[in-house]
Amino acid sequence: MTKLEKKDLLDIESLSEDEITLILDTAESLKEISERPIKKVPTLRGKTIVHFFHEPSTRTRTSFEIAAKRLSADTVSVSAATSSIVKGETLADTARNLEAMSPDAIILRHRSAGTPHMLAGLVKGSVVNAGDGMHAHPTQALLDMMTIRQRKGSLKGLKIVIVGDIAHSRVARSDIVGFTKMGARVHVVGPPTMIPLGIESLGTTVSHDIRRAVKTADVIIMLRIQKERQQALLFPSDREYAQCFGLNREVMSKAKEDALIMHPGPINRGVELAPDVADGPFSVILEQVANGVAVRMAILYLLLGGSR
Amino acid sequence: MTKLEKKDLLDIESLSEDEITLILDTAESLKEISERPIKKVPTLRGKTIVHFFHEPSTRTRTSFEIAAKRLSADTVSVSAATSSIVKGETLADTARNLEAMSPDAIILRHRSAGTPHMLAGLVKGSVVNAGDGMHAHPTQALLDMMTIRQRKGSLKGLKIVIVGDIAHSRVARSDIVGFTKMGARVHVVGPPTMIPLGIESLGTTVSHDIRRAVKTADVIIMLRIQKERQQALLFPSDREYAQCFGLNREVMSKAKEDALIMHPGPINRGVELAPDVADGPFSVILEQVANGVAVRMAILYLLLGGSR
Amino acid sequence: MTKLEKKDLLDIESLSEDEITLILDTAESLKEISERPIKKVPTLRGKTIVHFFHEPSTRTRTSFEIAAKRLSADTVSVSAATSSIVKGETLADTARNLEAMSPDAIILRHRSAGTPHMLAGLVKGSVVNAGDGMHAHPTQALLDMMTIRQRKGSLKGLKIVIVGDIAHSRVARSDIVGFTKMGARVHVVGPPTMIPLGIESLGTTVSHDIRRAVKTADVIIMLRIQKERQQALLFPSDREYAQCFGLNREVMSKAKEDALIMHPGPINRGVELAPDVADGPFSVILEQVANGVAVRMAILYLLLGGSR
Repeated sequence: MTKLEKKDLLDIESLSEDEITLILDTAESLKEISERPIKKVPTLRGKTIVHFFHEPSTRTRTSFEIAAKRLSADTVSVSAATSSIVKGETLADTARNLEAMSPDAIILRHRSAGTPHMLAGLVKGSVVNAGDGMHAHPTQALLDMMTIRQRKGSLKGLKIVIVGDIAHSRVARSDIVGFTKMGARVHVVGPPTMIPLGIESLGTTVSHDIRRAVKTADVIIMLRIQKERQQALLFPSDREYAQCFGLNREVMSKAKEDALIMHPGPINRGVELAPDVADGPFSVILEQVANGVAVRMAILYLLLGGSR
Repeated sequence: MTKLEKKDLLDIESLSEDEITLILDTAESLKEISERPIKKVPTLRGKTIVHFFHEPSTRTRTSFEIAAKRLSADTVSVSAATSSIVKGETLADTARNLEAMSPDAIILRHRSAGTPHMLAGLVKGSVVNAGDGMHAHPTQALLDMMTIRQRKGSLKGLKIVIVGDIAHSRVARSDIVGFTKMGARVHVVGPPTMIPLGIESLGTTVSHDIRRAVKTADVIIMLRIQKERQQALLFPSDREYAQCFGLNREVMSKAKEDALIMHPGPINRGVELAPDVADGPFSVILEQVANGVAVRMAILYLLLGGSR
Repeated sequence: MTKLEKKDLLDIESLSEDEITLILDTAESLKEISERPIKKVPTLRGKTIVHFFHEPSTRTRTSFEIAAKRLSADTVSVSAATSSIVKGETLADTARNLEAMSPDAIILRHRSAGTPHMLAGLVKGSVVNAGDGMHAHPTQALLDMMTIRQRKGSLKGLKIVIVGDIAHSRVARSDIVGFTKMGARVHVVGPPTMIPLGIESLGTTVSHDIRRAVKTADVIIMLRIQKERQQALLFPSDREYAQCFGLNREVMSKAKEDALIMHPGPINRGVELAPDVADGPFSVILEQVANGVAVRMAILYLLLGGSR
């Protein structure tokens, strides 16, 4: 496979194993551009990419903007605060209006699940889901897979443990689907209030004991405790969460020697992740960020007609 | 006429019929750029365009930014929230400061009528009025004229009906002046509280009955009910407004077969415009949006020294 | 000296007289680019510059953005409101994350003194201090030196008077250090509540009488009364401040014939500076703004590897 025969990137579910491999291989070959003195190729010159972010985001928006600019695309940024949505326009009308300006791609972050799918049905240009509600965050899952593949060669046969609020995490959902598709076994850990009923149907196993779960893990992904989404109701306090489900040196002492530590960021230091572990030798958190730019370059490149 | 001998675009009043024709012809020839795979020409390379928006706006700001980028200009965006105006600087001082940085054009949206005229007197670069208070929105009037001309060949002799809050609409004011100048007859319709005294002096006729007015209309322009400007005081409720002055299928049944439906956006669906009419076969609302990019490209191109 | 052997520009203290001269000479030669019809050179093509502003700022951010674009760099803007900092991320983590995306330079404005120094220690790319708390604003001092040098040939032997809230001004601090380094004598004037204890250790003299101080001044720099930083506690009222420490025609009648009037902006007209003086023949305030773009171009150019 050398071309992605798709208009949009909406979720991991709709990608085949071959398509994921194509995206990751393309990202590997584009990654080197960000290491050059002149970090720019003319590939997407004259393409218009709209960044449409309805939730605040530094890292994802910046990552997408840098990806677009390193491929020489023109970018326009629209945020919720300045958009017509404050004037009561429906998202469908906003979408049709953007469409009439002939963007080649719209990168959408939205608090409501399913919004990118709706948008994709309305516009001729490509739609990339940059995170929708608690549903999906496919570019995060792809950069996670790229990072694991770089360190472990392949995802096949790996045991990957995801710890935290599985129920409300779009990252967890996209990761589980992607990792499973690529042949890894996924195990999720968290307090019962944070584990959705029926999660096993995605092919994962479940437990509530991080100390036991890390013993056989090749990769440990710590999810962010999202204070801004009122998770106070799901466990008594940050301190108790840290004691029961946080990753610290004591928990790490039970892990395999070559286990990777990952986190989608931003980190709550001292809550889900102890500072010395976040900055320690097993952490590949900053490799995830660097791979994020490469994966987004690959997606824009492939969706807008590029091939390997 | 092949060149626009003007520094600024402040209102429609100051444009001659020939100048309007030059802008529309130029827009027609530039429109094709947005339909190419590589949507970009080097025409304004090395020009600096400042977008200075004191009111929230998705469509107008995005349209201007895309227009500038498709002509290869460099753009810098300043919004009210981040500007020195929050520090108590006068607009004149902000203007002189921007001027000292040698921008080639400043695109200004401001809630106070007359601000672009004041700015134009202070700076050497071009000033484009992107909407000032209830005064003028000349690029909207130009894109409206472009859309009508595309569908009807010419504005000459057409009957154009504008429905809504004529008194508080900068779109209505610029439209009336432009349409009349190009040879159309304009008729305005709205509740008496929304029709300014003496509007006939602009050359329009007035009535309060939409069902009767649409019978002879070649073009029907529905204005947005601007809830954010406290129009609640001007009529009892949205529902009653919709019944008396909204455009729905029943009203359309009285209109001419080939009447065009236009709206400057964003639409309040179910208030001034029924959804099936907004999305129906007579609606050219999205053509207006697409033409907006072309008209703004033409204006930037002509003001910054280009010719046909 | 033809090259700046530095990674970062954090303050004036760490620049030698030769380095300052190199920056000013480079700025002089780059200034002409902003006067061309095509205001752009390809010097920094393919470089990624992140503008990271934690305080509102029109002029400084716009000046840096225009500087970067006229050198063909790619720019990405991150503001406090949209950043992960609202999600509780530490600045160090935000910095490491930006770093992982391989920016060539980060331009930082921050309300806390010392933040740019911390950032510089964390990232491989260049850090430029665009103002940190009450500490330093080195690009302002450099553009002030450039403006004085243009008008007076050199700073050597000049008497420069700075009037206002010396204690809380990062501009004053950077100006004093820079002017002194380049051979000027600096005298500061203000109410006792606004003069820091021990300011003489920086090499300045102090008084509280503007009328006397201006008599021998070659340059008079009026600082902004920063209402947003609650200076109401430091003097009774704006009116009294204007009477005692404001620069108006009456005070100017005591000044030397060729004294320059400078102000970092934004001006509080009628408070620290009378309108007729701000706009009068001695004022070089707008030259400061124009030189700001040139100085920032020079700094970006030199830090990212350029030479004269």
